[in-house]
Amino acid sequence: MAEPIDPAVVEAENEKRAKALEADYEALGAHLDRRGVDIEAVRAKVAAYGVAVPSWGVGTGGTRFARFPGSGEPRNIFDKLDDCAVIHRLARATPRVSLHIPWDKVADLSELTERAAAHGLGFDAMNSNTFQDHPGQERSYKFGSLSHTDPATRRQAIDHNLECIEIGQALGSKALTVWVGDGSNFPGQSHMTRAFERYLESMKAVYAALPEDWRVFTEHKIFEPAFYSTVVQDWGTNYLIAQELGPKAFCLVDLGHHAPTVNIEMIVARLVQFGKLGGFHFNDSKYGDDDLDTGAIDPYRLFLVFNELVDAGERGAANFDPAHMLDQSHNVTDPIESLMTSAMEVQRAYAQALIVDRTALSGYQEDNDALMASETLKTAFRTDVEPILAKARLDVGGAIAPVATYRAAGYRAKVGRERPETSGTGGGII
Amino acid sequence: MAEPIDPAVVEAENEKRAKALEADYEALGAHLDRRGVDIEAVRAKVAAYGVAVPSWGVGTGGTRFARFPGSGEPRNIFDKLDDCAVIHRLARATPRVSLHIPWDKVADLSELTERAAAHGLGFDAMNSNTFQDHPGQERSYKFGSLSHTDPATRRQAIDHNLECIEIGQALGSKALTVWVGDGSNFPGQSHMTRAFERYLESMKAVYAALPEDWRVFTEHKIFEPAFYSTVVQDWGTNYLIAQELGPKAFCLVDLGHHAPTVNIEMIVARLVQFGKLGGFHFNDSKYGDDDLDTGAIDPYRLFLVFNELVDAGERGAANFDPAHMLDQSHNVTDPIESLMTSAMEVQRAYAQALIVDRTALSGYQEDNDALMASETLKTAFRTDVEPILAKARLDVGGAIAPVATYRAAGYRAKVGRERPETSGTGGGII
Amino acid sequence: MAEPIDPAVVEAENEKRAKALEADYEALGAHLDRRGVDIEAVRAKVAAYGVAVPSWGVGTGGTRFARFPGSGEPRNIFDKLDDCAVIHRLARATPRVSLHIPWDKVADLSELTERAAAHGLGFDAMNSNTFQDHPGQERSYKFGSLSHTDPATRRQAIDHNLECIEIGQALGSKALTVWVGDGSNFPGQSHMTRAFERYLESMKAVYAALPEDWRVFTEHKIFEPAFYSTVVQDWGTNYLIAQELGPKAFCLVDLGHHAPTVNIEMIVARLVQFGKLGGFHFNDSKYGDDDLDTGAIDPYRLFLVFNELVDAGERGAANFDPAHMLDQSHNVTDPIESLMTSAMEVQRAYAQALIVDRTALSGYQEDNDALMASETLKTAFRTDVEPILAKARLDVGGAIAPVATYRAAGYRAKVGRERPETSGTGGGII
Amino acid sequence: MAEPIDPAVVEAENEKRAKALEADYEALGAHLDRRGVDIEAVRAKVAAYGVAVPSWGVGTGGTRFARFPGSGEPRNIFDKLDDCAVIHRLARATPRVSLHIPWDKVADLSELTERAAAHGLGFDAMNSNTFQDHPGQERSYKFGSLSHTDPATRRQAIDHNLECIEIGQALGSKALTVWVGDGSNFPGQSHMTRAFERYLESMKAVYAALPEDWRVFTEHKIFEPAFYSTVVQDWGTNYLIAQELGPKAFCLVDLGHHAPTVNIEMIVARLVQFGKLGGFHFNDSKYGDDDLDTGAIDPYRLFLVFNELVDAGERGAANFDPAHMLDQSHNVTDPIESLMTSAMEVQRAYAQALIVDRTALSGYQEDNDALMASETLKTAFRTDVEPILAKARLDVGGAIAPVATYRAAGYRAKVGRERPETSGTGGGII
Repeated sequence: MAEPIDPAVVEAENEKRAKALEADYEALGAHLDRRGVDIEAVRAKVAAYGVAVPSWGVGTGGTRFARFPGSGEPRNIFDKLDDCAVIHRLARATPRVSLHIPWDKVADLSELTERAAAHGLGFDAMNSNTFQDHPGQERSYKFGSLSHTDPATRRQAIDHNLECIEIGQALGSKALTVWVGDGSNFPGQSHMTRAFERYLESMKAVYAALPEDWRVFTEHKIFEPAFYSTVVQDWGTNYLIAQELGPKAFCLVDLGHHAPTVNIEMIVARLVQFGKLGGFHFNDSKYGDDDLDTGAIDPYRLFLVFNELVDAGERGAANFDPAHMLDQSHNVTDPIESLMTSAMEVQRAYAQALIVDRTALSGYQEDNDALMASETLKTAFRTDVEPILAKARLDVGGAIAPVATYRAAGYRAKVGRERPETSGTGGGII
Repeated sequence: MAEPIDPAVVEAENEKRAKALEADYEALGAHLDRRGVDIEAVRAKVAAYGVAVPSWGVGTGGTRFARFPGSGEPRNIFDKLDDCAVIHRLARATPRVSLHIPWDKVADLSELTERAAAHGLGFDAMNSNTFQDHPGQERSYKFGSLSHTDPATRRQAIDHNLECIEIGQALGSKALTVWVGDGSNFPGQSHMTRAFERYLESMKAVYAALPEDWRVFTEHKIFEPAFYSTVVQDWGTNYLIAQELGPKAFCLVDLGHHAPTVNIEMIVARLVQFGKLGGFHFNDSKYGDDDLDTGAIDPYRLFLVFNELVDAGERGAANFDPAHMLDQSHNVTDPIESLMTSAMEVQRAYAQALIVDRTALSGYQEDNDALMASETLKTAFRTDVEPILAKARLDVGGAIAPVATYRAAGYRAKVGRERPETSGTGGGII
Repeated sequence: MAEPIDPAVVEAENEKRAKALEADYEALGAHLDRRGVDIEAVRAKVAAYGVAVPSWGVGTGGTRFARFPGSGEPRNIFDKLDDCAVIHRLARATPRVSLHIPWDKVADLSELTERAAAHGLGFDAMNSNTFQDHPGQERSYKFGSLSHTDPATRRQAIDHNLECIEIGQALGSKALTVWVGDGSNFPGQSHMTRAFERYLESMKAVYAALPEDWRVFTEHKIFEPAFYSTVVQDWGTNYLIAQELGPKAFCLVDLGHHAPTVNIEMIVARLVQFGKLGGFHFNDSKYGDDDLDTGAIDPYRLFLVFNELVDAGERGAANFDPAHMLDQSHNVTDPIESLMTSAMEVQRAYAQALIVDRTALSGYQEDNDALMASETLKTAFRTDVEPILAKARLDVGGAIAPVATYRAAGYRAKVGRERPETSGTGGGII
Repeated sequence: MAEPIDPAVVEAENEKRAKALEADYEALGAHLDRRGVDIEAVRAKVAAYGVAVPSWGVGTGGTRFARFPGSGEPRNIFDKLDDCAVIHRLARATPRVSLHIPWDKVADLSELTERAAAHGLGFDAMNSNTFQDHPGQERSYKFGSLSHTDPATRRQAIDHNLECIEIGQALGSKALTVWVGDGSNFPGQSHMTRAFERYLESMKAVYAALPEDWRVFTEHKIFEPAFYSTVVQDWGTNYLIAQELGPKAFCLVDLGHHAPTVNIEMIVARLVQFGKLGGFHFNDSKYGDDDLDTGAIDPYRLFLVFNELVDAGERGAANFDPAHMLDQSHNVTDPIESLMTSAMEVQRAYAQALIVDRTALSGYQEDNDALMASETLKTAFRTDVEPILAKARLDVGGAIAPVATYRAAGYRAKVGRERPETSGTGGGII
């Protein structure tokens, strides 16, 4: 299989920037050394870090008002894998792809595993979809899926999740992520207690089918597509689910799924403490589930989440092995560029969290020295760790400047010629 | 043209409820009389009140995740007018329809006016659409329309608005409503000042083409489809627009377009005070632009808006002639039922505002008697004015219980047979 | 002991309104009868209902900017009990008072029980206070209490709670409510996990001291006085506390302690479902913990909470016995008037929830008839149940119009003469 | 007058850090040079930048629940000036102090000017206070001040503002900042239109008394102390005020005074565009008007505000001369440390905004290259400009590490011995 990006382009682009990188890296190393931080140790951890990309993320997203497709939109999961390969080829931070069924369903799964293997990609968590009606589907999810009042509809939704597990097993996935749109638009429409009882009953059937070495991640969301109540509305309900289901059940945190002003890093801390943090859907938001590029709106919040994760890792928190995935909607950018940039933002927050002086922080916390505790975090956050990230990419053949290199390589123009134009479906719903 | 609803059904349904209504009306009349309120005067005002329905509202709405169509979805503007006729036939509160171009564009406008006239319906404000790309359109609105960086795209958007005015003139409309999705998803994407300058320049071109007896309503919205900044984000910007454009320009308030916790009735008061309140898009919301049925979530807020309107009317505020329109997305209900119910909710809030004891209220305000002022409003709001609304409908041949009567008449089943099933387009964008 | 309100005034005021009430009650009875509701059964339930008043609520509240005292401010717990007696005398809905230690601490508890008994009042839950420093207190709560990093400070806070239990036992209380302001103002200031571990450890010590027939209610709050993180920030954390502590531990819901847009009735439903709803602090809010009069801002939300409670009661939910208490800050009204009015608002919501047609509602929910389900709730909410409340008061010697009667009785003027003016302490903190 | 901080301590502390700073500065200079930025030019602008400190900010703040004073609380404006001198001595970024009347009122103004001059401090905008009742004041502001229903109360509030101007003239101030708490806690309590009319009338009287070379800044706030409506609730109303008053009237933006999720930098852009941006009260917030240290919660938002300011300055926006002031409540930190740190955060955001590549940004905006536009801002924000700030301080005799130096100098301990302990007044209001 042909390399999706010409190595000569990567090399040429890197060469333009190598000397400056070297200087920046050296200066940062000296600076960090003065702060008692070993830059090489940080680099090694950053290099080992990976975040999964969602297969659907390489297509242009949209809103209920409209979708404005870009050129070269992927036609199917094979095109999507090719795009994911480009992302990983250049940014070297996204070794796994997360599939969405039925969108990524294919007749022959071995073709999928072969294409992925050829690209050096693995498969992350499987995602079921019972928030839409699919062609040929017997019963509608208009009024819910796993919590529907009709047992046959619930059964259909359960069966779909079982199928996702089955597909995932063939692909080497080890987790199922369940997000449902179930809820209500009117007070009274749904009996909130009975709906949750039904949801739990359905999820227990899904849980029972989980292979021994799998985990299931349930995802909460305050609103949308339901606008009055959502069955799994927040981490409190999500925790109850994980607790009711059992030890293989964990909570997934999407950064855009909370009420305004909510302290998300605190939710992360609580879930870690009670052994139920399953993982993340990274993105950023200003208003609601905006699904913007990770770190684009509030990079300090992202850092504070990673501060909790690094802290939990370093103190050896029990049951702590969160899955990391991007989940964004790219409405106005080239999805490949956004996913590369976002993967690097996640890495950046991780690197910044790694250089927090935790001994000092602990002391300030113990002494209630609020100002110095805050400054300890800010100092780490303020450090420009870009040279560490760039070096980690360069070391394994990635690009110092992934976006510039991607543009230089002309990949979008190429697929724009190969793949037919798509129309702006999805519009007109207001 | 055949009556959309069999009058015999209406009559039969009314007969079942007439006696109870009579008793309730009489009791309410006696009660109001003790409070110094003449029930007949209230009824007359309610009967004279009308709220426009949007042509797009009779189709099932959806979210970016999915649309779950109902049966008998209208195929075109003629079907939509038929559905609107049913709404007005039964609830007698929606004498005008608001069109959306290009969705409702037809080759021969006289057909439209004839069909509307046959139904006894008029045309309200025209709505332009530059938030989507339409087949055959030369330039894309992906990065904006009236505020686009490219002058040719702005020109195209301006021309579209001019066409809307032209169509509206043929139909007897007297206003143009302009809502754009222009904005940005990333800090830096758009130069916020230059974008607004371009928007103003474009709108000045539209304004210049307004017929003498027309008004233009601009609509603000805090977010969606843009998720970092919106060009017309709030009433402050909206007011600046109206002021820059001139005396025929007014601000339109959609109840779901504000930041969380914002006091909407206060915005209404301010716009009234400065002579720039153009009108409303009524709906209800809990989280964002949820577009739920009016009064379904917070009926007291709706009442407080009408309290401002009635107060402004009674004190003869200058330049005060707001347009009233419903603007909702009916995702889980029969749109006809939702629009009838919502029209009645608007009437209800109006009726409750009419029976506020304004002399007493004024006195309490002057004396800073906060508790009694609050109780004065609550007393009006608590009054069950349903008999007044029902009587007003009955008097002019409408239904005492519009939803029950609609169901008894079997209209949905009938159009379900006549109109082909539609698919759940619009899904898959996340 | 002299009656706080002259019975002759009550009688005279009632006489003015008795005839109108009779007419309204009769008309409502006939109307409800047509809907299949027995007005007498509703009245009996309303008459049996009570909500506790907080001792601190009878003083004028304030903000960090200022406090503007009224005349006749209570000087101590005895004055407060007198004021509470007036509230119950007229509105007949607040048979118990909830004390706050150390504010209400007295040397001789028997004096307290005697004064309460003379007024026909009982004692509700005890409230501890570790969010302030009190004169003579050894260690400061500036940086927390039950979660403080210093064990001695935690011990002091625990001991204070034990003292509250002790006092409560002497007074016949059966519950302890614990609200703490513990949290942080800066990212990093507090180690969120360790702080919660310390909180849990402290609460376990308090729990261990609970008498057999007592319950403990913990209260969550998203922010204020801590402005970055709060140890017990939401119902998820609150549920974890109740679960960790044991069967006598329950969650208390204050209506103003949630993030913007959060669906509170859903939280109530979840806590009921998992047997951990302890009770309520009723009030209303538009922006934050505004502590406004119950039902003053969003009466439909209050109704929706009661809809959950009545539903839970009727289906015999396990472990369901929530405590009801008002918790408001009366900054611009006479506190006695606000508490009477708010107690009636709570009763009103309860009465409206009682007349929901639950059989019909259940059917609509089963059929996913969202519109009719919503209308079923709205119909109950729209019903003006004031005659039921007034009759229930009148039957047991209360006032048809408590506020008017209170004003006619001249109580505020009387205590204004007896009690010295207080100054606006509390201001100047910004 | 003795130096508040021993210069020898400053020198010794600086010496410890001078070499590292030199290395960091050099590396940053080389890095910026590669990006086409002249570090010296940036340093010169940063060195010339100043932000005012509020006199009340050097005292420990609190909430309505409690105030926990620190040691050495300033007793009066002279102590406050001493504390402000320390802040400026070390951080060299706060050359002016903003006074609050009547808190800072003194019999002999010349003493004030002398003390300030001795410290090398000037006076910034005067702040009036009509949100509290002051001892000896004839009429209460419980129900409002400039918008009160009673003309005599309004007159009193106007006169107070005139007195502030008079004092300010004596001190060399050139602006008056007016923030009022006027509003309402209940729907109906206040007639929103009439209240605003009265406010405008009062402000016109204040405006009429403004000296020729003065400006007046009005400040909006969404809520608190009023919890249902605030007379000057948002920038829309604030703009109307500035417009009604005249060319010397401008809008002041406090970063914590907006509804959740609101895009503040966009408000800044609008006010600049229409020539009405008066200035800022800098602080940070997560939930409401939290008054936390500037940049402590969302440093990127602060940067985005400065991005607008630098952009406006560079393109020579008309009427653009905003006043910069800190306005924070220091509840858990040493106020001097917080104010130094916050002043540096403001400088940091300014420095970062100065190194934005505006030519590139402009190009990306023109081309709708959202990703690169975002990255252009992020690149500037990610740059650790601390060496520039530190060098700018060092150059004029300030401290490389102001907080560490302050601690080493023992100032707090010294004033802790000299100034008596204060009590936690302000508590107990809930």
